Amino acid sequence: MSDCPLCRQPQPGEIWRNKNFYVIDAGGDGLPGYIRLVCCGHVKEMTGLSQKVRLEMLELLTVIERIMIAVMAPDKVNLASLGNMVPHLHWHIIARWADDAYFPDSIWSAPRRAAPDGQTMRQRTELAARMVEELKRALEPFS
Amino acid sequence: MSDCPLCRQPQPGEIWRNKNFYVIDAGGDGLPGYIRLVCCGHVKEMTGLSQKVRLEMLELLTVIERIMIAVMAPDKVNLASLGNMVPHLHWHIIARWADDAYFPDSIWSAPRRAAPDGQTMRQRTELAARMVEELKRALEPFS
Repeated sequence: MSDCPLCRQPQPGEIWRNKNFYVIDAGGDGLPGYIRLVCCGHVKEMTGLSQKVRLEMLELLTVIERIMIAVMAPDKVNLASLGNMVPHLHWHIIARWADDAYFPDSIWSAPRRAAPDGQTMRQRTELAARMVEELKRALEPFS
Repeated sequence: MSDCPLCRQPQPGEIWRNKNFYVIDAGGDGLPGYIRLVCCGHVKEMTGLSQKVRLEMLELLTVIERIMIAVMAPDKVNLASLGNMVPHLHWHIIARWADDAYFPDSIWSAPRRAAPDGQTMRQRTELAARMVEELKRALEPFS
C-alpha cells in the first residue's frame, strides 16, 4: 500500500531484509536494545500470514530474543504486536531493565521515573550496538 | 514457584488447560474480548521454552487470534508478552476497537476517552462470551 509507512523500502534503521520480513534497529531515546521485526507484505494480523511464513516469523523472533538476552542480559524482554496506528504486521522486541523509565509498566505507559544516568545508558547503548552486529550475523542464514 | 500468581491452579477465569499451557478469559472492565495464554511452567522468556513447546505456543496464539477475529471482528488484535510485573511467560490477546478507551494506544497507556456506551458494550460482551465458547471447542484437540 503506497501510503503505508511500513511498506516503504528501505526503512530508516533497517539492518536486514529477506522476501518476507525486515528488521529495524529502533533503539534510542532512553530505550537501548529495541528491535522491530516487520512483515514485508501489507498484512494486518499474524493470522493473515501463511503457516510457513508465520513459522518463519516465530523463528526470527526467537533469534532476536536469544541474541538480545545473550548480549544485553536485560531484566526482561517485551514482545508486542499492536499495530493500532499502523495496521501492518510488526513486532516490537524490547530489552527492559528494572531502572528504565517505564518499568514495570509497558513502554507505552506513562514514565515512572527519569531514564538511567549517562554512564549506565552509555554501557547499554554499547551493548545494543554489539547486539545489532551479532543479529546481522545471525540473520544471514535467513537471507 | 510457590509465590508466583501464575503458577497457581486453577486460575480465576480459566477456560482450558493442557500440560504446557492454560487459557484465561480476562475480558471485562471496558475491554471485552481479552484472552490470556499462559505457560504452565515457570518460564520467564519465550526462548526458555523447548522448540516443540514454542511451536505449540504459536499454534495456540493462532487459534485464539483466528477465533477472536471470526467471532468479534475487532478493528485490530493486539498481542503482547511483557511479564515485567510477573516474569512468568504469558500472552495478552486483546480485541481492539477504534472507539475503545485507549485506541490507538496500547491498553497500558493512559485512556484517551470513556469506554463505549452501554449498548455497544453489551453487544461486544455478548460476542466475547460467544468467542470464549468457540475457543473452548477449538482448544479441545490440544487437550
